[in-house]
Amino acid sequence: MKKLFKAKKVKVFSPASVSNVGAGFDIFGFALHIPGDELVMKIVEKPGIHITKITGDDHHLPKDAKKNTAAVSLRAMMDAIDGKFGVEMELHKKMPLGSGLGSSAASAVASVFALNVLLRKPFSKSELLMFALEGEKIASGNTAHADNVAPCLYGGFTLVRGCSPPDVIAIPTPKDLYCTIIHPHIEIKTEFARKILRSQIKLSDAVRQWGNASALVAGLMKPDYDLIKRSIEDFIIEPIRGALIPNYFILKETALNNGALGCSISGSGPSVFALSRSEKEAKLIGSEMKKVLTKIKLKSDIFISKINHEGPKIISLSDTL
Amino acid sequence: MKKLFKAKKVKVFSPASVSNVGAGFDIFGFALHIPGDELVMKIVEKPGIHITKITGDDHHLPKDAKKNTAAVSLRAMMDAIDGKFGVEMELHKKMPLGSGLGSSAASAVASVFALNVLLRKPFSKSELLMFALEGEKIASGNTAHADNVAPCLYGGFTLVRGCSPPDVIAIPTPKDLYCTIIHPHIEIKTEFARKILRSQIKLSDAVRQWGNASALVAGLMKPDYDLIKRSIEDFIIEPIRGALIPNYFILKETALNNGALGCSISGSGPSVFALSRSEKEAKLIGSEMKKVLTKIKLKSDIFISKINHEGPKIISLSDTL
Repeated sequence: MKKLFKAKKVKVFSPASVSNVGAGFDIFGFALHIPGDELVMKIVEKPGIHITKITGDDHHLPKDAKKNTAAVSLRAMMDAIDGKFGVEMELHKKMPLGSGLGSSAASAVASVFALNVLLRKPFSKSELLMFALEGEKIASGNTAHADNVAPCLYGGFTLVRGCSPPDVIAIPTPKDLYCTIIHPHIEIKTEFARKILRSQIKLSDAVRQWGNASALVAGLMKPDYDLIKRSIEDFIIEPIRGALIPNYFILKETALNNGALGCSISGSGPSVFALSRSEKEAKLIGSEMKKVLTKIKLKSDIFISKINHEGPKIISLSDTL
Repeated sequence: MKKLFKAKKVKVFSPASVSNVGAGFDIFGFALHIPGDELVMKIVEKPGIHITKITGDDHHLPKDAKKNTAAVSLRAMMDAIDGKFGVEMELHKKMPLGSGLGSSAASAVASVFALNVLLRKPFSKSELLMFALEGEKIASGNTAHADNVAPCLYGGFTLVRGCSPPDVIAIPTPKDLYCTIIHPHIEIKTEFARKILRSQIKLSDAVRQWGNASALVAGLMKPDYDLIKRSIEDFIIEPIRGALIPNYFILKETALNNGALGCSISGSGPSVFALSRSEKEAKLIGSEMKKVLTKIKLKSDIFISKINHEGPKIISLSDTL
């Protein structure tokens, strides 16, 4: 055991993430400070992956190691380690599932990040990404996209240029960017949200989309807030998925009227994100958006967070060897 | 006259430009130092636009002010000036026409830039862009794209985020970037090169394209040469237009095998551009590509240029008032 590990127990935090970010369907994402998952991992003698507890989950996530996202990604990682040991995990979901906030990516990243913390010879982030994607595959029906896993694992704003192998590019962002998330209490299955998209799109729409996606990168890197604002525009996915979220277009208008730099659907929804330049604005945007949903008697949660540049982190480490 | 003008005669240079640049169909472009057009402009009493001479043109460009690109853009500009005067122009085409190097954009920009130099109260670049686009429209059948006019006028590498109104974003580029152009002596009509494109494309291809376009912006701005290299990839336009250029895919392979960071079709072709990091490499790439065409008895010109960050420039100014 001493050879492989430097500690036997760790508790980690793994963040939620916003993917797509307007024009960057399947390529852009950024990590949040809240919400996120907590995972406790303990190395044990008994071989295998044992999920001992799952809390905060009204979806009845499978404890079966072959079906659980966190376990499947961990299995891929453990298969790459030459060693006989077992793992016990407690997963505390502290974020809504099926909400478009990368819940499955957070769990997939949590377990591989946790084991990596315990290892004497840790894996690189790009190796961890490959393991985590195995878990993400289980959650999203065998089509693993890295647009949530990448920002969750690397932190910050990421661009996934290509998928096989994943090419993750860190995009620098201005420091004073705040994100407001509103999570309406309805659920949209990622698989359904993907199925309703058209497999063919107009070339002219695609040109606008890659113009906006490229411009958002330029806006973030310069930084140029006005350009960021102009570029968070999606003519392809949002018109279709927006219809699945009650009052979506009113939510968006409300965010923009209250100072948001941009507002669109987080991942496949139903969560909606808005970017702004101060905590005050971010809170105002949140409370005004909440009013829109309250009016139609739809409950919602609001999260306010800066972009999380760290990714997953250690909460506590014990039983060092 | 004195009120309106600060000089009566000017000779200007207006650069060729590379548009599309791999994944940035209809949005990316950059200006070159060579080749380019020269235009001599003289303010005269006799109202109207008089094209007195066109050289270097085996295409028989129209001298008729209603049909000539340089004259049409100038007409738009003169209509915006409250003054009674005429203009005499000589246009010296010093670049191949119908070559994918933005010849019509260069002429459209040359005339409005020239008149602006002579004016006491010059127009802004964004105003000049609108005038130049009127000329570009004539040349390309009433569909004006700013992807050549923008880099030609602003210089540097530009991203045209949207067309109405044009939103031109300057993308900083590394200083040591060289461009090799090979211009095979065949002609491809822009209109035809556009007609053969599919109006509908696969969403999955579009995702790769906006991944590459965004990544190229990040690669140029960081700068990250390896990322630039990975991002100059076009799965949508190049496979179709590449077939119009004899031995195109061999040309591309030759460029990449000789150190090019990226190689693709310039505009709608037939010119092909390759980027590299030194003049030595740029020249080697040019001579090796030339051999490919010589083998099939196709004549070609080679141009080597850094990215031109200045745009059009004054060659000489006289008759100051």
